[in-house]
Amino acid sequence: MIKQYLLSPGPTAVPEQVLLRMASPMIHHRTPQFSAIFAETRSMLQEIHKTTSDTLMLACSGSGAMEAAVMNICTPGDTMIYVNGGKFGERWGKIAAKHGIHAVEIKVAWGDAVTIEAVQSALSQNPEAKAVFVQASETSTTTEHPIKEIAALTKDMHCLTVVDAITALGVIDMPMDDWGLDIVISGSQKALMLPPGLATMGISKKAWGIIEVSKGCNTFYFDLLTERKNQQAGKDTTAWTPAASLIIGLNEVLKMMLAEGLDELYARHAILAEGARAGFNALGMKLVSSKPASSATGAFIPESVDGAAFVTYLRDTMGVTFAGGQDDLKGKIIRVAHLGYYDVFDVCITMSAVEIALNRFGYPVQMGVGVGAAQTVLAERFAKVAV
Amino acid sequence: MIKQYLLSPGPTAVPEQVLLRMASPMIHHRTPQFSAIFAETRSMLQEIHKTTSDTLMLACSGSGAMEAAVMNICTPGDTMIYVNGGKFGERWGKIAAKHGIHAVEIKVAWGDAVTIEAVQSALSQNPEAKAVFVQASETSTTTEHPIKEIAALTKDMHCLTVVDAITALGVIDMPMDDWGLDIVISGSQKALMLPPGLATMGISKKAWGIIEVSKGCNTFYFDLLTERKNQQAGKDTTAWTPAASLIIGLNEVLKMMLAEGLDELYARHAILAEGARAGFNALGMKLVSSKPASSATGAFIPESVDGAAFVTYLRDTMGVTFAGGQDDLKGKIIRVAHLGYYDVFDVCITMSAVEIALNRFGYPVQMGVGVGAAQTVLAERFAKVAV
Repeated sequence: MIKQYLLSPGPTAVPEQVLLRMASPMIHHRTPQFSAIFAETRSMLQEIHKTTSDTLMLACSGSGAMEAAVMNICTPGDTMIYVNGGKFGERWGKIAAKHGIHAVEIKVAWGDAVTIEAVQSALSQNPEAKAVFVQASETSTTTEHPIKEIAALTKDMHCLTVVDAITALGVIDMPMDDWGLDIVISGSQKALMLPPGLATMGISKKAWGIIEVSKGCNTFYFDLLTERKNQQAGKDTTAWTPAASLIIGLNEVLKMMLAEGLDELYARHAILAEGARAGFNALGMKLVSSKPASSATGAFIPESVDGAAFVTYLRDTMGVTFAGGQDDLKGKIIRVAHLGYYDVFDVCITMSAVEIALNRFGYPVQMGVGVGAAQTVLAERFAKVAV
Repeated sequence: MIKQYLLSPGPTAVPEQVLLRMASPMIHHRTPQFSAIFAETRSMLQEIHKTTSDTLMLACSGSGAMEAAVMNICTPGDTMIYVNGGKFGERWGKIAAKHGIHAVEIKVAWGDAVTIEAVQSALSQNPEAKAVFVQASETSTTTEHPIKEIAALTKDMHCLTVVDAITALGVIDMPMDDWGLDIVISGSQKALMLPPGLATMGISKKAWGIIEVSKGCNTFYFDLLTERKNQQAGKDTTAWTPAASLIIGLNEVLKMMLAEGLDELYARHAILAEGARAGFNALGMKLVSSKPASSATGAFIPESVDGAAFVTYLRDTMGVTFAGGQDDLKGKIIRVAHLGYYDVFDVCITMSAVEIALNRFGYPVQMGVGVGAAQTVLAERFAKVAV
């Protein structure tokens, strides 16, 4: 027996009360019973997004919602701008290529955040661009991009800011209406603490205006106008068969998040990430990102250690699943999560496991140094309660 | 949201696969379907006990099985010997008093193991004693008593060795037939990784011989001869309504334990306890026991700290449930578990939590020192697998 821990930046652990709720006897999705749950869930999603505009739930992964955004905004031949600072940023370009959309790439070194100047310059050179597509948190490099500032640039242009917030929704505050974010996409298996299979989208009034007049790309399944018609208040259903158990689970998850309080929720993620960074620093493991996100932390594995074997050993021998690196970072980094159903002792487990594994791989670190540094930060989380 | 950890020496965490098995649709207990599960479970229980004699399952807590043992062996007026080295040893005396049995107490200082000399002396002075009642692991002081040596003393006498192994079955090897243990009692909510409500008993041929001729105490529910008749192979049922879901859960648990391998199982518990002891030593927290058990570790909380508030803070503010002390040790110690569905990172969580709480209570310890010392021991658990 080796006890298992899922501490990767998605999929993430599903809380017991959500698992139990999802294990309730299945109900039919074309009933008033399901519609009541759907309506309540939609309303809570709006609360999390801090928007009075629409939110949609789609039976697909986050990538499906990314493509849906591109296809509904852009028509083949249109111009779009995208930030490519990692594996997920790159995906916007791949989607655009499939649809014959002219995609202007803002290339960013892996681990860095895009600069506002670069976005400003791309917008000036491509005034016809329909939207800027960007990650709030680029999970492959654990980097946060300045989406608030990007949205401020497009706010008064005939151009949208579309945010892949798959590892950011529920991690950091992203008030859609205040910041002028136009489309904010998330996926169920991240901070929404669910199994994969459900995507969510917040869509601004400005975005609908552009979508309504856009010919768009050919799509039957991902027609957002059809979805809006079905998912709107009063209809409270979906165009096609919904991922019903995931929506029921999301209903439970959003209640948990609102019960915790959004400010508390964001503060928790921030301190957990800060604790992990302190731990890696104490172990002398350099961070991958110059602008680290709160969703996950990437750190370089010492060069003398076989990084791929290191992550595999942690998973298969020690029972702790993290993520390794992708593409150029393959075998070089470890990525550890902080998002969703994640708390202080998950950071402690992370640092303890990394310390044990480093020693096991012949890279001696003093046992307890990383976890101790993390604990010093994390203790703050309990400090509100008097002893 | 504060994530919860149940790390007390019973009740213990129930593994997911056991929870799922217990959540299967209920079956009727007077059916061939249930009897098949019952028979398989009984047979695995014999394997764990390393006995060819009978095992019984009773719908009661461990205390019920303790009383059942006393009542079936002893008749009012009989003499019995019991080891009182803590809260649970004391219980034998209380049970005897209820039934008018003359109970000879071997008083042992809390934290110490009984000496063979003391048992030998009690046996010499009370040759009419029907049995010696003793804990394998005295949970209130986290102490292991020398049950093998005690059984060796009674083996050739007309006297039984009755062992409360409630926190020992599944933690340490206790081969009933080899050691000559006569009755070995356990409870579901300890190393058997189940919710409370089920007790198990291994009963030797010698014990049955004495039970068969004993008038015993007046009991309808706890008549072990009636239970044997019903639970024997071929009948495969219980005298009274069984705790069916717990027996179904036990079926799953015993399969897990046998799949892990009994030697592996005992080695796991031993190293986890050794890791925790190393951690407490590094923090300068004195152990409660001079002969510590592998099931749980008790350590003294620094005198300047309010011990009761300390354990409550860990539970209510930090989400980590341990146990405090009882009676004379109340407010003075913390008891942390290692038994059941418990692994390396549970020890790490334990030490991290204690370190954070000590600092919070104004008793400065260097963060990471305890968990680091534990990790150095625990790393060994993963050392079998080549990197």
